[in-house]
Amino acid sequence: MTITGDMLIGASAVRGTSKIQQAINPATGEVLGPDFHGGGAAEAERACALAEAAFDIYRNTSPEARAALLESIASGIEALGDELIERAHAESALPVARLQGERGRTANQLRLFARVLRDGRWQAATLDPALPERTPPRPDLRLQKIAVGPVAVFGASNFPLAFSVAGGDTASALAAGCPVIVKAHSAHLGTSELVGRVIQNAVADAGLPEGVFSLLVGAGNEIGTALVAHPAIQAVGFTGSRAGGLALVQTANNRAQPIPVYAEMSSINPVFLLPAALQARGAGIARDLVDSLVMGVGQFCTNPGLVLAVDSPALDVFRQGAAAALTDKAAATMLTPGICRAYDNGVAQFGEIEGLLRIGSGQTATGPNQACPALFETSAERFLADHRMQAEVFGPASVLVVCRDLEEMLSVARHLEGQLTATVQADADDHALAASLLTVLERKAGRVLFNGYPTGVEVSFAMVHGGPFPATSDTRATSVGASAIERFLRPVCYQNLPAALLPPALQDGNPLGLWRLANGELARH
Amino acid sequence: MTITGDMLIGASAVRGTSKIQQAINPATGEVLGPDFHGGGAAEAERACALAEAAFDIYRNTSPEARAALLESIASGIEALGDELIERAHAESALPVARLQGERGRTANQLRLFARVLRDGRWQAATLDPALPERTPPRPDLRLQKIAVGPVAVFGASNFPLAFSVAGGDTASALAAGCPVIVKAHSAHLGTSELVGRVIQNAVADAGLPEGVFSLLVGAGNEIGTALVAHPAIQAVGFTGSRAGGLALVQTANNRAQPIPVYAEMSSINPVFLLPAALQARGAGIARDLVDSLVMGVGQFCTNPGLVLAVDSPALDVFRQGAAAALTDKAAATMLTPGICRAYDNGVAQFGEIEGLLRIGSGQTATGPNQACPALFETSAERFLADHRMQAEVFGPASVLVVCRDLEEMLSVARHLEGQLTATVQADADDHALAASLLTVLERKAGRVLFNGYPTGVEVSFAMVHGGPFPATSDTRATSVGASAIERFLRPVCYQNLPAALLPPALQDGNPLGLWRLANGELARH
Repeated sequence: MTITGDMLIGASAVRGTSKIQQAINPATGEVLGPDFHGGGAAEAERACALAEAAFDIYRNTSPEARAALLESIASGIEALGDELIERAHAESALPVARLQGERGRTANQLRLFARVLRDGRWQAATLDPALPERTPPRPDLRLQKIAVGPVAVFGASNFPLAFSVAGGDTASALAAGCPVIVKAHSAHLGTSELVGRVIQNAVADAGLPEGVFSLLVGAGNEIGTALVAHPAIQAVGFTGSRAGGLALVQTANNRAQPIPVYAEMSSINPVFLLPAALQARGAGIARDLVDSLVMGVGQFCTNPGLVLAVDSPALDVFRQGAAAALTDKAAATMLTPGICRAYDNGVAQFGEIEGLLRIGSGQTATGPNQACPALFETSAERFLADHRMQAEVFGPASVLVVCRDLEEMLSVARHLEGQLTATVQADADDHALAASLLTVLERKAGRVLFNGYPTGVEVSFAMVHGGPFPATSDTRATSVGASAIERFLRPVCYQNLPAALLPPALQDGNPLGLWRLANGELARH
Repeated sequence: MTITGDMLIGASAVRGTSKIQQAINPATGEVLGPDFHGGGAAEAERACALAEAAFDIYRNTSPEARAALLESIASGIEALGDELIERAHAESALPVARLQGERGRTANQLRLFARVLRDGRWQAATLDPALPERTPPRPDLRLQKIAVGPVAVFGASNFPLAFSVAGGDTASALAAGCPVIVKAHSAHLGTSELVGRVIQNAVADAGLPEGVFSLLVGAGNEIGTALVAHPAIQAVGFTGSRAGGLALVQTANNRAQPIPVYAEMSSINPVFLLPAALQARGAGIARDLVDSLVMGVGQFCTNPGLVLAVDSPALDVFRQGAAAALTDKAAATMLTPGICRAYDNGVAQFGEIEGLLRIGSGQTATGPNQACPALFETSAERFLADHRMQAEVFGPASVLVVCRDLEEMLSVARHLEGQLTATVQADADDHALAASLLTVLERKAGRVLFNGYPTGVEVSFAMVHGGPFPATSDTRATSVGASAIERFLRPVCYQNLPAALLPPALQDGNPLGLWRLANGELARH
């Protein structure tokens, strides 16, 4: 498939007349062709008009039809073969094996939502039959969830496939019945076009209205702001920086009709080392934690950026082990020159904070845009007093916070901002403390994990990739896993609707064979 | 039970030192004792500190314990007997029979959430068992929903029981496991205190922490703003005006940690009269619609403020019938002097809009704070051109919009802002048109009803009392019905949690007997 540098607006390839962008190979600095011709407000308007025109038709397609679309997209992405992997590798410097895994995850995610669609519980079909003899009589009431409207999606830099053009936001919005307009991330423009063309083709092959999908390109904020401000757009999915997410939230709040923004923003993913575990497994935890820290050059939303432990001889073992393990870690290429600069700045700023000491470093950079891993240490007292230490430094940097005692560790936990994840390393003797900590961490994070590392987000039914602000802008939502579809649905109640007009999910006799709540009881008949 | 004019902060009665407010009988202008001593930011802080202290204990009570609390509150409200009804009648001028019905509805609502708690589906328990043999291995993942944190509730003027101190917001938040702080509505301060004392006593009788409930009083915005801005508060329930709701949304958005505001604000509840129904039943619809319009002096969120029909001889019959029916309707006392002034101003402003003609009036006022019902008429063309005609005039006023043809009626439907309800009067011959209209109205309203009138909101499983902005600030939510609990919950995923630490809903063997999603399949074992 040829990458042309055009935007995909409905069925058309559109050459923008705004600023030209180029893809860069961060490992070499080489410019990767072609030129990408960015658009502005006019192209956002055109995509939104098509999405609006497509919405009523698309949302009223059968769940089966949408499931087939998602499966067709999954197959189309797989059919791109090495071309996709090679382009993504060139644009991101992410290893080929990692990208192959991410491709599998992306396809699986699309297929998971096909399964969700066929299962049908997303419709929340609910029936309260009429009670004509009651005083006052109860009318016939039936509820289902329907799509909210066209959705704008802003992909992440760090997952060019799984959190990008055909990533979780797009998959869940398309499943819900929402047309999707993606703003391509400038870190992987060619990858975005390849995947975008797969979706464009799948929409056409399915005979769906062209406005079901568009892919926009644009430097700066103009096109994205125009997109979020457009009256047709009814929800926004975003994965990226706190500043970027908050800017979109602001734009959405300032609309005549405010809309929800599901922004997954920043998280430092604290890891608590409890005493018995630290005593028994300190050296092993140090090694595994450093592996988790540098995995993917630390470019995960769930990267462990904070480690907490009580001062003790066992902590000395951990500290030395971690510093030693880090020494062996090579500097590695980050996703973009800008991300690498931001990392270097973040590490430099940490270095200037009084009482925050660098206690470990990986190997120095040997090529462009390489990050050198860094481990810092501070006391709980200083951490509690200096909010700057809670800032996310995106990349392989982490801060060890040394607590005087367990009570101080709990104080630090209570002081933390909202997180995507919180991790506890605990052995059986730690369980009493772990229970107290769990009560705190449930309120701080969307996912609490024991005796593991936070990197690695399963795409399944029980996953929550979300959490209290500022981890996300909406603590009720997850951007990964089956529940992600709920972000793009709203409930509608139908009262005394004539049988001829009832939507299939709510018809007598349950023709779709759904799980439905009838008279407050769940049943499938 | 003596009404003292104190605030109820946890277990204490607290006399505010801020401005004194008095309850007024709107039917007579009489001041009803005692003085209510309002508080300010200091009292909000005290209530929030208690709520925060109570939260972890309260949210971890068993669902059964919270169900018992709700039932105890319901019984306590019923046990107040005539004292409550008489006070509410004196403060609101609402008829005694209506208040008795509202009391029943309030108690039923509390008991519905007790049922919801025992049913347990609100916990959304989900289990994805570990797959250790898979590449990569899948960890054990379990999801449940937990309470978001302390909730601030602002009651409505127009339902002194069902949307007030122990109304739907409080009932659903307490059910979810959230402590509640209510800001009493100044329209019914004595009623609020009576019900507040019932909740305070029920919390004490159950041996729960005192911070589970507080009731604040205060003139102006200070105490309410302080409440919403307080870091302990994690969500807000509000029913009232658009200006009031948007002010709270603004305060919530400006926090260091923004929080969701569930504001049910304004709606004009369009009623569409389709040709066959109008032809067959025009006179009857006119009579019933006028009854719905003046019911409760038009002081319902779902009052029919807009009627749409195509110009025809049948419409003449309807118009004349409606105007005639209105002539017989007495002016009636509104809830407060301020609400009556706002109504009179709204009607006067409608009278000044060019092309908006008054075509019907009820009888003139004979006492203080009485509203005279009013029916206006305009053309669809003018309605589409003048946004002022979409303003909600809270009270018994409605606008008939005359459309040239069915296409113009659909244009008006598409042009409408978000609504709580949309109503269609349609006979069998109207079904083709009704289907087109339904596609538009689903996107405009939280509840679409046929051949009825929007006043009257059932408290049940399938109810949606919500809708797109500006009907509410969150189109995904309902403030009435079993789903209202979802506003105050957030999902948490537990990964590889030791069995000893798993919350009851997620333990192996399903000790609570919940419906759970295991491996993507719903089961109760």
